[in-house]
Amino acid sequence: MLRWLTNYRREWLAGDLSAGVIVALMLLPQGMAYAIVAGLPPVTGLYASILPPIVYALFGSSMVQSVGPMAITSLMTGTALAALTAPGSALSVVLAGQMALIAGATLFLSGVFRLGFLAGFLSRPVMSGFTTGAALVITGGQIEPLLGGPLVAIHPPSAIIGLSSLLALWLAKQFLVRGLRALGLSARLADMLTKLAPVLVLVIATAVAALGLAQARVRVVGDIPSGMPTMALTLSAEHWRPLLVPALLIAFMIFLSSQSAAQSLAQKRGERIISNRELLGLGAANLASALSGAFPVTGSISRSAVNYAAGANTPVAGVISACLIVLVLWVPTTWVSLLPLPALAATIILAVLGMIDFTTLRDAWRYDRSDAGALLATIAGVLLLGVEEGVVLGVVLSLATLIWRTSRPHIAVIGKIPGSEHFRNVERHHVETLPEVLMLRIDADLFFGNVDAVTDHLENLLKARAAEGLATHHVVLVMSAVSLIDTTGLYALTEINRSLEAQRVKLHLTEVKGPVMDRLQRSELLSRQLSGQVFLSTAQAFRSLGEGASQEN
Amino acid sequence: MLRWLTNYRREWLAGDLSAGVIVALMLLPQGMAYAIVAGLPPVTGLYASILPPIVYALFGSSMVQSVGPMAITSLMTGTALAALTAPGSALSVVLAGQMALIAGATLFLSGVFRLGFLAGFLSRPVMSGFTTGAALVITGGQIEPLLGGPLVAIHPPSAIIGLSSLLALWLAKQFLVRGLRALGLSARLADMLTKLAPVLVLVIATAVAALGLAQARVRVVGDIPSGMPTMALTLSAEHWRPLLVPALLIAFMIFLSSQSAAQSLAQKRGERIISNRELLGLGAANLASALSGAFPVTGSISRSAVNYAAGANTPVAGVISACLIVLVLWVPTTWVSLLPLPALAATIILAVLGMIDFTTLRDAWRYDRSDAGALLATIAGVLLLGVEEGVVLGVVLSLATLIWRTSRPHIAVIGKIPGSEHFRNVERHHVETLPEVLMLRIDADLFFGNVDAVTDHLENLLKARAAEGLATHHVVLVMSAVSLIDTTGLYALTEINRSLEAQRVKLHLTEVKGPVMDRLQRSELLSRQLSGQVFLSTAQAFRSLGEGASQEN
Repeated sequence: MLRWLTNYRREWLAGDLSAGVIVALMLLPQGMAYAIVAGLPPVTGLYASILPPIVYALFGSSMVQSVGPMAITSLMTGTALAALTAPGSALSVVLAGQMALIAGATLFLSGVFRLGFLAGFLSRPVMSGFTTGAALVITGGQIEPLLGGPLVAIHPPSAIIGLSSLLALWLAKQFLVRGLRALGLSARLADMLTKLAPVLVLVIATAVAALGLAQARVRVVGDIPSGMPTMALTLSAEHWRPLLVPALLIAFMIFLSSQSAAQSLAQKRGERIISNRELLGLGAANLASALSGAFPVTGSISRSAVNYAAGANTPVAGVISACLIVLVLWVPTTWVSLLPLPALAATIILAVLGMIDFTTLRDAWRYDRSDAGALLATIAGVLLLGVEEGVVLGVVLSLATLIWRTSRPHIAVIGKIPGSEHFRNVERHHVETLPEVLMLRIDADLFFGNVDAVTDHLENLLKARAAEGLATHHVVLVMSAVSLIDTTGLYALTEINRSLEAQRVKLHLTEVKGPVMDRLQRSELLSRQLSGQVFLSTAQAFRSLGEGASQEN
Repeated sequence: MLRWLTNYRREWLAGDLSAGVIVALMLLPQGMAYAIVAGLPPVTGLYASILPPIVYALFGSSMVQSVGPMAITSLMTGTALAALTAPGSALSVVLAGQMALIAGATLFLSGVFRLGFLAGFLSRPVMSGFTTGAALVITGGQIEPLLGGPLVAIHPPSAIIGLSSLLALWLAKQFLVRGLRALGLSARLADMLTKLAPVLVLVIATAVAALGLAQARVRVVGDIPSGMPTMALTLSAEHWRPLLVPALLIAFMIFLSSQSAAQSLAQKRGERIISNRELLGLGAANLASALSGAFPVTGSISRSAVNYAAGANTPVAGVISACLIVLVLWVPTTWVSLLPLPALAATIILAVLGMIDFTTLRDAWRYDRSDAGALLATIAGVLLLGVEEGVVLGVVLSLATLIWRTSRPHIAVIGKIPGSEHFRNVERHHVETLPEVLMLRIDADLFFGNVDAVTDHLENLLKARAAEGLATHHVVLVMSAVSLIDTTGLYALTEINRSLEAQRVKLHLTEVKGPVMDRLQRSELLSRQLSGQVFLSTAQAFRSLGEGASQEN
């Protein structure tokens, strides 16, 4: 921790400085815009950009992560607050801080208890579906501010500013990189300058609005209190309960969003992201956000990528950004107050449209239809049920596809390849079998999700043998592919053993892996109940049961 | 379907008849008691015992399942209704029917779409924890009716009836079986008669209350409308939304409770339970319950076991029970109206105390601490957060233990056993390795829950080799234990390939299973990106890369 600070090299400073400046210029409009998405006063977005990145630097493990306001978490904050209070009210600011507090504490404690594995609750296609759905919801919510009113009653001056800002931003995105490269700039520099187009567009829009359209009643950002946020935490005792579930869901999405941003950049830099350190960093950043009158924050994929591309070497870049935001708040902020909301809506729309991702859908559609189905259902869930419901649905769908895939494990009836010690599937190879012995290889872990299928399959096999007139006196389960038997799996084995015993069939186990065996030895199944034996190898079981059979004959 | 009816044999009738009578005698007090637990008029519990078992008989797959009111689903119904209306109100009856409608439709459609695998969302320890927690909640809720008032202000006549009923029931449970057997009855008969103790106790308590304590104001069941329920469905349009989530959770628990009851009995009878047929049967039964002015129903473990023990052969037993309940409703029901509530509370308490299960906790504690932890956390969740929250928590904990266990798969660095074609873990065997080749066997499926760990592990291995001064030019992934690569896994492999290529390391795959290969061939990873080769066997990879190395040298 903080090794980057004690080992700081002077030559890193140039990169950190340029990245810090560029990210600060991105953060200014983004911070205010995402505060609006969260239904909060614009200045809170700037507050969310000061302490959180500094505190993240102390605990997090990514060198180039830009922590601050982010589209999805702001949308989730806004949705949760809308159910409890009016947007922009004093209470909404209190509740936003309280959400950041709960989310931050949850993340921090998850880091302490090393719960980073929980990121594995969401598959990548489902995450992509959630992001796309959230981007569509945010875009839908910005159409009214963009046009200055609902579609049936747009406000022409606002619509002109909004739509021309949107057009300018779109043109910049499409052509500016190419234009700048034609002027001889490097690809990286051209790309970075393009990211600053929103600031430029907003400055022009503000100038136009301030000069020409002052009487046209275009809505503007309004007064921004000058100076630093007050370091204080106001809480609303009656709102702990209604905020709990939304805050937990936000904590989950904070971790997942940040994790995917951090990981892709760390891979490029040859560094490692330690999930549990990330949890600490994000938790501390959100606690800091709660203290500074702001709202839930996370690592932003788009800003972090710019930070990396602009040459950031260490979290010093983030600290520099934060200092610049502080400077902006200390100089008179009148110019910010004149920023027209339609132009800000245009920057939001163009930013989140970039989050819409059809590549993953195409890949999943080709590769695995159930993943593609989960992705589409998550988009539909976010749009039709809501954002929080979308997160829950996404988790359910990720796990449902997992449970579904693992619910019917492959089980092979095996026999011995003549003249060898190898055992193979009887359906694919010419193998020897013993007359009254059924040998099965279970190609999966035995856990609560598939024990019914395994029990069923075994019963069917026994019935099929009986129907063919084959007696069965021994069932041998080959456990070479089983690395886990949970308690439900143990119960299933116990019941299989009991039911076979009632039919006078002995159950044997072979090739049980070390850790699985250690555990089984603590159960009554092995110590008392098992009707047959535990063999070390399948070959040994085959030999022993074969000899037994020939003696009986 | 209905094969049991077309093939019905006369000799089955005796068993079905005796089981039908005994189960009806159990259903009478249970039906009213569980209606009270659900916060509904007692008669609705009798309505829930008529049509649902008959309709289940048409669709379900179990021969001996007793479908009707059950403790856990009644508790869940009561909890959901309590948030919306006063217990026993006219609206509560409407909403209970609406819950049964939503739950029934969900179950039926889940059956049509073959979603029976969803039972695999809850592990057995967690289910045990949920049942224990629910039993404690129900017991807690019955203490006030048992004593005729809160603990600080008990109503002595009520408490006398309640506590003496409880004592009588407890004594019957402890000693009646033994007593009856001493009188020469068979174990089965003694056991069955013991199950009728509640009816006997209630009859005595009713007589005592009616004769001696009429002036003592002991609360009684009250007027039971005579005759059949009206077949009609009143709905409340504004309550669809608040009922949705509770009804979905109840549907899930209906399926799980019924499934475990049906499965253990089917195993004893050598029959099979088809999950998707069970879903249809339970769905239809709940739709029928909605139509008959009742509430969500499911298969009861305790009644089904009695039904089986009393000799039930087919669902005809359930139909006979239903007819007997109809008879009871057609004769004058004055005697039922005098049934004292404290005695009914005693039967509830004794019934649900039997659901408290510490055996599973003990087994899980010995065998797998994480399962035991999930069980305890689920009990705590039901008690502290609530019943619905307990179900959700249980699902989350089941899946969390699964994700946690699979999140760090075993990955072995392997080498060739000299003079053979076998490859084994370098740490456990003396094996040959190639100087610039890292061979890994992944002992798990590659899915969203473990891809980060796999990527991390590989990076660490490469760093460790670099630290020892070993160059790596080839990484070979041995996929013999991988039966599944989901879309997230495919992305991880693609990123591993890209990151290795950036370090000038080639990625090769060997022993990819057929179905996994079919899928990979549809991806760009195999068709275009893979830097290395796909070998059929590890031995072939070893030979080919070994030759390549010696040529290079």
